[in-house]
Amino acid sequence: MDPRIREHAEVLIDWSARVEPGDDVVVYVSEGAHDLAVAVADRLGERGANLVTRYASDEVRRAYLRTHDRAFETDPSAELALLEAADVTLSLGGGRNAAATADVAGETWQAYSKARRGIREARLATDWVSTIHPTRALAQQAGMSYERYRDFVYEAILQDWEELAAFMAPMKEHLDAGSAVQLDGPGTDLSLRIDDRIAVNSAASVAYDSHNLPSGEVFTAPFAAEGSVTFDVPMTIRGQPVRDVRLTFEDGAVVEAEAGEGLDVIEELLDTDEGATRIGELGIGMNRAIDQMTNNIMFDEKMGDTVHLALGRAYDANLPEGESGNDSAVHADLITDASEDFELRIDGEIVQRDGTFAWED
Amino acid sequence: MDPRIREHAEVLIDWSARVEPGDDVVVYVSEGAHDLAVAVADRLGERGANLVTRYASDEVRRAYLRTHDRAFETDPSAELALLEAADVTLSLGGGRNAAATADVAGETWQAYSKARRGIREARLATDWVSTIHPTRALAQQAGMSYERYRDFVYEAILQDWEELAAFMAPMKEHLDAGSAVQLDGPGTDLSLRIDDRIAVNSAASVAYDSHNLPSGEVFTAPFAAEGSVTFDVPMTIRGQPVRDVRLTFEDGAVVEAEAGEGLDVIEELLDTDEGATRIGELGIGMNRAIDQMTNNIMFDEKMGDTVHLALGRAYDANLPEGESGNDSAVHADLITDASEDFELRIDGEIVQRDGTFAWED
Repeated sequence: MDPRIREHAEVLIDWSARVEPGDDVVVYVSEGAHDLAVAVADRLGERGANLVTRYASDEVRRAYLRTHDRAFETDPSAELALLEAADVTLSLGGGRNAAATADVAGETWQAYSKARRGIREARLATDWVSTIHPTRALAQQAGMSYERYRDFVYEAILQDWEELAAFMAPMKEHLDAGSAVQLDGPGTDLSLRIDDRIAVNSAASVAYDSHNLPSGEVFTAPFAAEGSVTFDVPMTIRGQPVRDVRLTFEDGAVVEAEAGEGLDVIEELLDTDEGATRIGELGIGMNRAIDQMTNNIMFDEKMGDTVHLALGRAYDANLPEGESGNDSAVHADLITDASEDFELRIDGEIVQRDGTFAWED
Repeated sequence: MDPRIREHAEVLIDWSARVEPGDDVVVYVSEGAHDLAVAVADRLGERGANLVTRYASDEVRRAYLRTHDRAFETDPSAELALLEAADVTLSLGGGRNAAATADVAGETWQAYSKARRGIREARLATDWVSTIHPTRALAQQAGMSYERYRDFVYEAILQDWEELAAFMAPMKEHLDAGSAVQLDGPGTDLSLRIDDRIAVNSAASVAYDSHNLPSGEVFTAPFAAEGSVTFDVPMTIRGQPVRDVRLTFEDGAVVEAEAGEGLDVIEELLDTDEGATRIGELGIGMNRAIDQMTNNIMFDEKMGDTVHLALGRAYDANLPEGESGNDSAVHADLITDASEDFELRIDGEIVQRDGTFAWED
């Protein structure tokens, strides 16, 4: 076994999920993630945790969803009981075909998702962490050889997270203390409010309210967007390529949308509900080990020297007690390059310019 | 997909487990059973059942068990809650290496098994069915090509179970009505009592108290064995070849054991506890689609025109209310060929002679 798989399991269990002896740990194993599951089981045994393995197969899910009449039972009791009693849930992503569920109808997904709100909430109430085991299918999606993709994934995951957390900490301090955010760059002149919002120093650990491995971003929930922003990083959204999206905001809501490619998808997104026209997240990508797009949002949005905004739902972790943020059925990230001709100011102070933070030389 | 895989899923869900709409169905997927899992999910979706997939990987289990200090928690609550709320549990066997857990210490298995009694009981309280998806590893264990092994497995599984149930029904009637069983053959002259015991017409359906697919045997729980019996069908027990075992009983317990090969394993078995020296099961193999040994007890013990006896634990289904049968930590089946020079008599009446039952011509 590639020794990096064992290191991955160690980081996942020790740093990210903070598994304790006696914890009930539910592990979701994707079709291509077997080797990581073995390494995780090895570490969980050593830790004296209790292991329940789930088979998270896209092909099994597709088969089930396609024959079902869509009248899904609300929160089936066996699965709900499992998750309500679980302490930790680990999702080991890594499919064998990124398009494995491409022929499941959108209405089916919606009905399924709607019927499983309690199950989803029960999972999110555990110490949950999602990670990725590199597979050939994901390498293909990234446009990389398998060998190169594995190097890429482990460079992003196997790093000194304590050091990265320390590097990111000033960003959280600036966002927590600040009220007004200004983004400036080519095609971008956007102001946002962040009064009282709480930034998450997302250092790939439940101890930091961070649930992705890798992570490496600081994010908050802004509001009251005014102006324009251009997302110059090419992405794939709902299976379609999207490029050079430019959104113009008035009173916090999108009033104009343009795109070099993929405007249809953007308009479809904006049409979902009222919240989809407002910003739910401002994220500063600070994981410089991620230095290229790989068509996988778990990695893309953390890329060093990028900034992303999400249309739609805000995260609870960013909201002070009792306050509700932007609500929507969607949360769609769009990314802009911040490494050149770019400035991020908080209350007038330059925090990031051309890919360098104020606390770097 | 081989159309027989879909037929297998249909038999499993419709005939064997009798899944109803709204049932919570937990499906255990072995490493090599992916394709059957897809077919099962397809059928469960159609049925409107709720699906929870477990990953039953030998390699994951081995990794967990080998690093654990053996102080296993008793019946961890998350897994117990899942099984207590489940209606049906389906185990899709089919590993990729029959020796995958060969280096897990016996003491570890014992400690693990002991700590999971409640979980095991919760699973047995559901409508549970175990079946086998043919894999190359199982073909190898059977000494067959993969192609030939698949034919063998589907011939055993895809049959008219209603017809086989009807063919087996008189055997149950004879055993239920009878008091004394006599087995005669080369090296065999054994008498057993079966007063008040209830035979199971094991027709591969929970509706028949039968939990294996394939099945095809009628079994009961005899007692008071007197005489000798020779098991001339070669088997593998605990990884070791066993051949021509001859046991002599007095007052229901083994007083002498001989073997052409593998006497050590037999003696080890007999030494387990007092119940291991007594017979817990008499089974009549009646599935003639199984016409050869494949080193897999789920198939071997059902082979047409064989008779097997198990040392150790008796099944509750064979006991009248309030009566307790032979108790033991083991249940080890030994098989004898009944197709030639063999007679099975109940209360003096010949029920089976040289592979032909009294109700056949």
